[in-house]
Amino acid sequence: MAQQERAVITRRAVLEAAGEVFAERGYGAATISDVYTRAGVTKGAFYFHFPSKEELAQEVLDGQVSGQVGHLGTAGPRSGPVKLQGVVDSALLVAYRLTFDKLLQGSIRLSIDLGNVLDRRRPYGAWVEHQVTVLSEAKAQGELLPHVEVAPFARVLVGAFSGVQLMSEVMTGRRDVEQEIATLYSHLMPSVAVPAVLAQLDISPDLGRRLMAETVRDEGAQEGS
Amino acid sequence: MAQQERAVITRRAVLEAAGEVFAERGYGAATISDVYTRAGVTKGAFYFHFPSKEELAQEVLDGQVSGQVGHLGTAGPRSGPVKLQGVVDSALLVAYRLTFDKLLQGSIRLSIDLGNVLDRRRPYGAWVEHQVTVLSEAKAQGELLPHVEVAPFARVLVGAFSGVQLMSEVMTGRRDVEQEIATLYSHLMPSVAVPAVLAQLDISPDLGRRLMAETVRDEGAQEGS
Repeated sequence: MAQQERAVITRRAVLEAAGEVFAERGYGAATISDVYTRAGVTKGAFYFHFPSKEELAQEVLDGQVSGQVGHLGTAGPRSGPVKLQGVVDSALLVAYRLTFDKLLQGSIRLSIDLGNVLDRRRPYGAWVEHQVTVLSEAKAQGELLPHVEVAPFARVLVGAFSGVQLMSEVMTGRRDVEQEIATLYSHLMPSVAVPAVLAQLDISPDLGRRLMAETVRDEGAQEGS
Repeated sequence: MAQQERAVITRRAVLEAAGEVFAERGYGAATISDVYTRAGVTKGAFYFHFPSKEELAQEVLDGQVSGQVGHLGTAGPRSGPVKLQGVVDSALLVAYRLTFDKLLQGSIRLSIDLGNVLDRRRPYGAWVEHQVTVLSEAKAQGELLPHVEVAPFARVLVGAFSGVQLMSEVMTGRRDVEQEIATLYSHLMPSVAVPAVLAQLDISPDLGRRLMAETVRDEGAQEGS
């Protein structure tokens, strides 16, 4: 294996392990040795990639949106004619991934954990920016009611998602997170979508699960071709 | 001063100080000596009221809803004919109080802080119960659209509020919390209110501030009479 390839794999293993450790213990209680032990790499290899716990955690935090938007990008045919469906798709895909993706769980925990030294504004800002982009496309296509202001609504989407998933974690250990996010979106969309678009939106709790299955199938088909 | 009266004052001082300390440092980093020093009471007096940090914190957490519902109860004439206005009133009053009420800030932080030993389900559960009560009254009066299910919507209200105020804290130190909560409610209410009720709702960012001024005025008038 080439040295560069090995470095990429080590880096990824450290990030995954860091996600798990931060998800379980939070920033304050997590230690660097927890992370490199779990990742199965040496202390030296760890420090080659990340100079400190703070820089490691900031990378886990900053990767939250880019990592997920990567998954969204492959959602393929669903990011079709109705742009507003893309907003719902991303929410339910992230809700589904929250039930198993440790790196995402750790990143979300870091963005909620108060009193750490990290810049927690970055993931919120990046999510808002992503939503503003998609909502602006929806607006340009005439999907939004005329009075809707894109930026304040984007902020509400991001803040409300964050709280609803947190409450689901507290109340049920995230067992109902997809259901609760679907309920949230079914209550938010009527205030922004024109009726013809609203009637077409798919806001089902199993949407994230279905989108991911489609993605896996598409990737399998591409590999097989 | 009677002994009992002094005990009530000491207890209140300890709770207020605890709210400040938990708001600033979170559960893990806060110490009992931080709290009794700030409250200006002796260690002995502290332990007379609270056997441990855990029980103190749980009381701060559990008082979140009862304390705020107390404030709501005095909101007086506004809890008038339209029950759904009561739902908006309580949200904007709590948003306003979050800008200065240290006990509330500390309690909210404890309900968000992950990984502490407290039962964080209680404040969420109590808020949901409060919202279910008011929403059921609104439903009985025909204020809600026929398809609305009260309990899931109550959970969305509580979760979304929690996240929007958290994002406001992260992004602006809560400077825009009243504006952001007003935006959230203006996007949630169209999915539940019948048009005639929706048109009457007051969802302005300064609503909490006005309600509190009215309450203070009413109490002043009563004391003067």
